[in-house]
Amino acid sequence: MKIAILGYGVVGSGAYEVLTSNGYDVKWVLDIRPHAELGDKLTSDYNDILNDSEVGVVAEAIGGLEPAHTFVVKALKAGKCVVSSNKHLICEYYDELNQLARENGVALRFTSSVGGGIPWLYNLKRSVRADEISKIMGIMNGTTNFILDAMISQGRDFDEVLKEAQSLGYAEANPSADIDGLDVARKTAISSSIAFNTIIKEENVSVFSLRNIKKSDIDYISEKLGKTVRYMGFGIKNANSASCFVEPVLLSSDALEANVNKNFNMISLFGKSLGRLSFYGQGAGKYPTGNALASDVCDIVNGDRALNKEYAPLDVDNSGCMRKYYIRTNVNLDSSLVCASEKIGDCYYIVTNSVSVADIHELAKSILESDPLAFFAGIEE
Amino acid sequence: MKIAILGYGVVGSGAYEVLTSNGYDVKWVLDIRPHAELGDKLTSDYNDILNDSEVGVVAEAIGGLEPAHTFVVKALKAGKCVVSSNKHLICEYYDELNQLARENGVALRFTSSVGGGIPWLYNLKRSVRADEISKIMGIMNGTTNFILDAMISQGRDFDEVLKEAQSLGYAEANPSADIDGLDVARKTAISSSIAFNTIIKEENVSVFSLRNIKKSDIDYISEKLGKTVRYMGFGIKNANSASCFVEPVLLSSDALEANVNKNFNMISLFGKSLGRLSFYGQGAGKYPTGNALASDVCDIVNGDRALNKEYAPLDVDNSGCMRKYYIRTNVNLDSSLVCASEKIGDCYYIVTNSVSVADIHELAKSILESDPLAFFAGIEE
Repeated sequence: MKIAILGYGVVGSGAYEVLTSNGYDVKWVLDIRPHAELGDKLTSDYNDILNDSEVGVVAEAIGGLEPAHTFVVKALKAGKCVVSSNKHLICEYYDELNQLARENGVALRFTSSVGGGIPWLYNLKRSVRADEISKIMGIMNGTTNFILDAMISQGRDFDEVLKEAQSLGYAEANPSADIDGLDVARKTAISSSIAFNTIIKEENVSVFSLRNIKKSDIDYISEKLGKTVRYMGFGIKNANSASCFVEPVLLSSDALEANVNKNFNMISLFGKSLGRLSFYGQGAGKYPTGNALASDVCDIVNGDRALNKEYAPLDVDNSGCMRKYYIRTNVNLDSSLVCASEKIGDCYYIVTNSVSVADIHELAKSILESDPLAFFAGIEE
Repeated sequence: MKIAILGYGVVGSGAYEVLTSNGYDVKWVLDIRPHAELGDKLTSDYNDILNDSEVGVVAEAIGGLEPAHTFVVKALKAGKCVVSSNKHLICEYYDELNQLARENGVALRFTSSVGGGIPWLYNLKRSVRADEISKIMGIMNGTTNFILDAMISQGRDFDEVLKEAQSLGYAEANPSADIDGLDVARKTAISSSIAFNTIIKEENVSVFSLRNIKKSDIDYISEKLGKTVRYMGFGIKNANSASCFVEPVLLSSDALEANVNKNFNMISLFGKSLGRLSFYGQGAGKYPTGNALASDVCDIVNGDRALNKEYAPLDVDNSGCMRKYYIRTNVNLDSSLVCASEKIGDCYYIVTNSVSVADIHELAKSILESDPLAFFAGIEE
């Protein structure tokens, strides 16, 4: 079986190197830019791939919705297996692509869309076959972890570290998808969908941005509360619903995630028989993500064409999920919510009583209207 | 395809529950003890399984060498796929069983033989297909990790914690295989064999026992050296050989392994394109290990019958692998080896200069002749 790679950017070229250096037969690479090293393998006409009956698997590494979506749909309809690293595409068209793959009897894999080089989704899917998953959670974004680690270990402030992350290529010129949580929300939605055998949409994941964290928060959390901070996604299975949210989180220093540094990721599942299983590694980058994309391709080339499971609808409902929160704001909050509060300068540094995730995210909207710089973080017990 | 489970002890009964509660068809369970709940599925005659053409996969959870070895050989020769959780069997008969499986065109899987519920070997094998593994390492034994964690967090001494571990069922009445390192040596041998595509025998893995660690070591390591201790196996790929050893190891408090507590395991691979990938979870227990055994069965039932790769011989050579060591002994060592030394009571607490793993394990033998209570630990930089 021969392979076609769509897109020869960071991930596509990484996957190309991994596959060809390990003896796999990449026949075509689709890209509109010239790449002399690819010789005759390079094409800018997708029909070369679509009409080539030797190509059994198409690896999509273009990113974004179009033309990736059109190309993937055509590949599935042509009876070719598809592998993708594109979380935006998978999140937006989860249902359509899974249905198309099943109808055409071909495999659809997207391990590298969450957790970069970590075989997280692959193992999550493998675990779901013989276990009941009650919860998934993790550090799923390298950019925000790099920023938090640098703020904590070097005592620097958010804006300065963000600029460094941008200059190192860890953060985009427009960093919103990372620091405002859309990236983690998508990864949480895809992970929860697989864990709970359903479809969860990114817009149903409640998100607290990391953007407002300041050095004064890091100092207060460390010195007064004895905790550290990470930015994490959570999916929790309830009796008849799921709770899904993305938040900065206060952790004890001996939590495994508290020692996940630099741009690394750690993602965990909690199974009825497996207990906790955690996966740690590079959440992004040319070779790790390229390797993860290539590994999905290898599975298919080596004969694993299993179809994805059928799934059932499940509501997202954050009203039953109770946590304590850390809030830093200049708004004087209703005392029934406040467990402990300290005023330093203009700001209240607050630890709340236990409150539902739904309620705190609703309340945060109104607080942010008066105090757009307020910061919110869940507290892991 | 129907399933037979050999042995209805802790792991076998766990796998039985996991498989049957998830809709898999276990037709036979082999055990010599009565188990009313198994009804007609129970047999004490292996021929019932061997001669049943509906049984396509045999899951061995008897443990030990015989009769497990005889049963597995017969299953492979009868063209049945085999799954085993038995590290002793796999380590001893690695070559014979792999050859037999290939000759008979059947799958042989043993994920649950290392790391209990952690899909470590499964992912290691998957990674090897498309990456070059330079090193594996990990906390692979829950008993010794439980002992170390309790000694460190509760300030207790080895013998007392070992007795507690025995009373909780975490340690055997004869704890030697755990605390003297044979268990980790076998897991290191199997992991290194897969990582480096070869056969490494347990007798070629150099081992420092954990048995001699005392509260005074924990205190010195923490207070004077600012480190913590874990018991770990290592496999490192050299140009034309591999270094394989099992040692107590001094770690910085921010190392991921330093925060692996209780009886949990964490095992890592280092790949050329993947970088570091780590897997954390329950390294033993009825349901985690039963689930891992069941998951290998599920792969086969779902159609993954890939044969194991061919492999090539590779010498074990620890002479090129340089590390510093912590030694506590009443023997006054050659000063050329010693970087720092402090005498407290009768004992020297020593940090060595960089020395080869081969040399220190050789030297340790002679030190232990004069001081049978001496303690040795590698230092991770």
